[in-house]
Amino acid sequence: MELGLVGLGRMGANIARRLMRAGHRVVAFDRDPKAVQALAAEGAAPAADLADLVRRLAAPRAVWVMLPAGEATEQAIAALGGLLAPGDVAIDGGNGFWKDDIRRARALRAKGVDYLDIGTSGGVWGLARGYCLMIGGPEAAVRRLDPIFAALAPGPGDIPRTPHREGRDPRVERGYLHAGPNGAGHFVKMIHNGIEYGMMQAIAEGFDLLRHAGSPELPEEERLALDLADIAEVWRRGSVVTSWLLDLTAAALAEDPALEGFSGHVGDSGEGRWTVQQAVETAVPAPALTAALYARFRSRRERSFADQVLSAMRKGFGGHQEPR
Amino acid sequence: MELGLVGLGRMGANIARRLMRAGHRVVAFDRDPKAVQALAAEGAAPAADLADLVRRLAAPRAVWVMLPAGEATEQAIAALGGLLAPGDVAIDGGNGFWKDDIRRARALRAKGVDYLDIGTSGGVWGLARGYCLMIGGPEAAVRRLDPIFAALAPGPGDIPRTPHREGRDPRVERGYLHAGPNGAGHFVKMIHNGIEYGMMQAIAEGFDLLRHAGSPELPEEERLALDLADIAEVWRRGSVVTSWLLDLTAAALAEDPALEGFSGHVGDSGEGRWTVQQAVETAVPAPALTAALYARFRSRRERSFADQVLSAMRKGFGGHQEPR
Amino acid sequence: MELGLVGLGRMGANIARRLMRAGHRVVAFDRDPKAVQALAAEGAAPAADLADLVRRLAAPRAVWVMLPAGEATEQAIAALGGLLAPGDVAIDGGNGFWKDDIRRARALRAKGVDYLDIGTSGGVWGLARGYCLMIGGPEAAVRRLDPIFAALAPGPGDIPRTPHREGRDPRVERGYLHAGPNGAGHFVKMIHNGIEYGMMQAIAEGFDLLRHAGSPELPEEERLALDLADIAEVWRRGSVVTSWLLDLTAAALAEDPALEGFSGHVGDSGEGRWTVQQAVETAVPAPALTAALYARFRSRRERSFADQVLSAMRKGFGGHQEPR
Amino acid sequence: MELGLVGLGRMGANIARRLMRAGHRVVAFDRDPKAVQALAAEGAAPAADLADLVRRLAAPRAVWVMLPAGEATEQAIAALGGLLAPGDVAIDGGNGFWKDDIRRARALRAKGVDYLDIGTSGGVWGLARGYCLMIGGPEAAVRRLDPIFAALAPGPGDIPRTPHREGRDPRVERGYLHAGPNGAGHFVKMIHNGIEYGMMQAIAEGFDLLRHAGSPELPEEERLALDLADIAEVWRRGSVVTSWLLDLTAAALAEDPALEGFSGHVGDSGEGRWTVQQAVETAVPAPALTAALYARFRSRRERSFADQVLSAMRKGFGGHQEPR
Repeated sequence: MELGLVGLGRMGANIARRLMRAGHRVVAFDRDPKAVQALAAEGAAPAADLADLVRRLAAPRAVWVMLPAGEATEQAIAALGGLLAPGDVAIDGGNGFWKDDIRRARALRAKGVDYLDIGTSGGVWGLARGYCLMIGGPEAAVRRLDPIFAALAPGPGDIPRTPHREGRDPRVERGYLHAGPNGAGHFVKMIHNGIEYGMMQAIAEGFDLLRHAGSPELPEEERLALDLADIAEVWRRGSVVTSWLLDLTAAALAEDPALEGFSGHVGDSGEGRWTVQQAVETAVPAPALTAALYARFRSRRERSFADQVLSAMRKGFGGHQEPR
Repeated sequence: MELGLVGLGRMGANIARRLMRAGHRVVAFDRDPKAVQALAAEGAAPAADLADLVRRLAAPRAVWVMLPAGEATEQAIAALGGLLAPGDVAIDGGNGFWKDDIRRARALRAKGVDYLDIGTSGGVWGLARGYCLMIGGPEAAVRRLDPIFAALAPGPGDIPRTPHREGRDPRVERGYLHAGPNGAGHFVKMIHNGIEYGMMQAIAEGFDLLRHAGSPELPEEERLALDLADIAEVWRRGSVVTSWLLDLTAAALAEDPALEGFSGHVGDSGEGRWTVQQAVETAVPAPALTAALYARFRSRRERSFADQVLSAMRKGFGGHQEPR
Repeated sequence: MELGLVGLGRMGANIARRLMRAGHRVVAFDRDPKAVQALAAEGAAPAADLADLVRRLAAPRAVWVMLPAGEATEQAIAALGGLLAPGDVAIDGGNGFWKDDIRRARALRAKGVDYLDIGTSGGVWGLARGYCLMIGGPEAAVRRLDPIFAALAPGPGDIPRTPHREGRDPRVERGYLHAGPNGAGHFVKMIHNGIEYGMMQAIAEGFDLLRHAGSPELPEEERLALDLADIAEVWRRGSVVTSWLLDLTAAALAEDPALEGFSGHVGDSGEGRWTVQQAVETAVPAPALTAALYARFRSRRERSFADQVLSAMRKGFGGHQEPR
Repeated sequence: MELGLVGLGRMGANIARRLMRAGHRVVAFDRDPKAVQALAAEGAAPAADLADLVRRLAAPRAVWVMLPAGEATEQAIAALGGLLAPGDVAIDGGNGFWKDDIRRARALRAKGVDYLDIGTSGGVWGLARGYCLMIGGPEAAVRRLDPIFAALAPGPGDIPRTPHREGRDPRVERGYLHAGPNGAGHFVKMIHNGIEYGMMQAIAEGFDLLRHAGSPELPEEERLALDLADIAEVWRRGSVVTSWLLDLTAAALAEDPALEGFSGHVGDSGEGRWTVQQAVETAVPAPALTAALYARFRSRRERSFADQVLSAMRKGFGGHQEPR
């Protein structure tokens, strides 16, 4: 099968590679010509621009856009709307906002073009492990592109099968899900990332507590000096918190036990924020996921005005001076 | 009436002053002789040490200890246990832990000495406004010392009366409460401070949001430049958040609108921590009070190991570099 | 002066009354004719519909819309846009979303009509105490309507003056604030309500802890039976948590100490939600305010699917049965 | 090797079985004679009481107590202190509180008896998968019992090795860790369970959001009907949230997609609470772990007094009636 791919960053290029290894043909474009050349050297068909990319594909076409969420993706999808023909499919495989998908799909449908929103998880490991795909859009388009999704997804691997799945969609066990109509793919990815934030925060708080087990706030006989790398490692084996995120933590701690290579300024992307907004819009309490987001916000601040207000009040009623 | 007072720090000295202004006799001791001299110059009877202080009081005596919670108070109460006679009263008016009161009261009772645990709110303003007193201990001792409490408390003032209080304890409307048996005084004070932390945090977060109303994360047409001092002031007048803490915030912002005099390292005392522990022990969710405590913890850290763990995981799965 | 008033619910009718008591003329309309008649009996000029209301006012007109936020207000402002003339002013005094104000103001400005967004705090007590007003919009319109705002606001009253306010806008001390351009009024009201939620939650958690001071989870000698009404009352007098919300709590507990008249299903309005969304959009941590919102969400659920998921996991790894 | 085992509940009996399968001899006691008989039928040596159990073991002995944390364990360890001889080892393999271990170890050491505190993770799956062991106590005793620990732990299995572990303790990769002196074993288990609570809560909140994706609070075109079982399944394959807890969630949802078999009353054990108390004692913010604990507290309440207080305040200032 063949696929147009727009955006050859880390994720986009690896998606192209994984498809080509499975025997698919990839027509690739990036605004950086060097990225196009590099992928062409690995077997991709290079395109000079979006129009050229569309021309080099046979109808019915499928073009996967893998660009940063927001303006870049918006423009690429809009441009594709002017270039694709009825029966073609445009895909946003990036971290888009699910409500944007509903709007875009409506606009493209008016031109006879199908639209898929695909949440793609797997990060830098996806090339080797495969990508977990969450797909929103019309069933016919999803069916037609099945070979693409099957090639990108991890496949069943040696992961133990979940009982009671008889009669359920077998694609899911191969690592890709048609989650529902447009928006559903990115919605499911959004919640995935929300959970990811929460799980990461749980692990991070736990290791912070372990690290402070020798805190001078404790009586001397209650202070413990613990080996965090070994603790992370042992929990990978038979414990309840076994997880890929713990595997990564164990690896990081084995390499750099005090994590001195990290200052702790933690970025956040749209999905974590949208998850909290979804919680607010649907009146679903999400305290742990929100705590995770707020911890990231706080991590990037030198100091907090809220804390200054607290200090000012404390001085006001109690004459308290700030601790040094 | 007369009262022995141990500990002439800011709170202790002001308590002595307010009592003397009401015509009571105060015998005062502090391990710093200068503090004793200073208060003697204002009319207090100076004591050279605890034994001297006890000697200078007529039985049945009452001795109010106003020292930092913990070791200092523990030792003073224990020493008084050896000096006081049956029928006397020992008082901890500091920020003690309520379970310690139960233990101390039991030990003193064996010697015939009554014990009162008194939570005292009012801070540096108490001398002028009066102190809000929350008292735990035996009723007879509380009754006997009523003149002391009446002098320390604010009195009814011009605060509008609460409807439906007919038949209720009139002392409460004068600003002092016999909350229950030993421990009850400091328990009520503990929860008071827990609420105080939560209210402060709510105000602090609100002003942080106001300050960031012009955040570059917002589209330019949605950015607002707000005058925080004026906002605090207007809310003092007819709004739902009218409160003494808001009064203090308004005063601080009027004097220093950006609060540049404060770095935002916020201390915490025992009560805030004990409140959360009480929540845990009695299985009562207290998310806002706990958020307030954790914000203070975080305010005193340059960086957080939890955040470093998050950064390490993000690099592990996504190759994310920390934001600058 | 005269003012058109659209929406004669509890808030709208009281605003009309407070204005008429101050000698202003009110032309009143509500889609319920009985509400119009009732207010006409108190001296208002009745209007049959919006067009009639506009006709009955002399130019330059000012029309205050006091309707539920959302569709009702949106339609009324849009209709006024077609009826008012250049130089007139349309006001949304309800609990509108500040970004809607920016949009509406732009549309009205194109017709020469000014728009003001006014956050109004004071609830059912505003008629007697006056309303705290937070105003967004063009300065000229705010200045012209000053007599209206001065009449609605509480005035300086006997509230102690905040030091260091010399040279600052004196209107603020009379209880109304021109917060900035359009959107600023409702923005400040939004944050006000966010803080209100947080302060309420802090108080509520504290009283929950007090009520569980006798919890059977505690050892018997540590259980306390506390009088919550007296505690609330004593805190009104000299304590740090003195506030109007505490006054209300004291009154409610004095009347119904176990609050049996309340099931605890707590509603929430837009401002609490928008406050959290603002926190997310500007990357400002707001854990206490968010905890307050989530507690309300949770209060309205019989059971939570999240909790069912937890139970299912616990059964999965530990064979735990749910506690009865 | 041989081991005395006290407490033949689900965990204790499975530990005995796993040891016997590996060729170890187990002398077993439970206060329920039927439990002893049942295990004797599987090859264990039955003991009539603690003294009998000690008698049936050759010195130097090792006795593993696997009883509910608290009184039962406390009594068993104390009794063993009177029965064991110098050189013997007493083990608490249950969910004990780490500070109790420090105290117990000191008492036993005075008699020449070693004490080990072992956190044991693995739940009902441990018999087949092996138990993750976190051990606190003297190195010599840990070394001597290595065959026991090696038999109980999962072994390396086919779990990918963590890079950079060269030169580190190889026992860890077989699933057991000597974490440090007494207390360290249960301390590490405590934090493990704290993280477990947090990860569970993150997953639970995410699925709650997925379930409410069709909430009537959303505009109709934004409502999604999602298949939660398929979503959990696909995330097991290549996504960042891959974890054993997700495996369990996928299995539960595949069997009962609406989880109707669960009411959502979620129990909590000591470790979750102690984790929060540790956070408070060492001033380490743990908002996500605490949110998880509080969600469990809330799940077991029909209604919350805090929410009733909120309703009372809302009625007080705004005349709000509770929503139905």
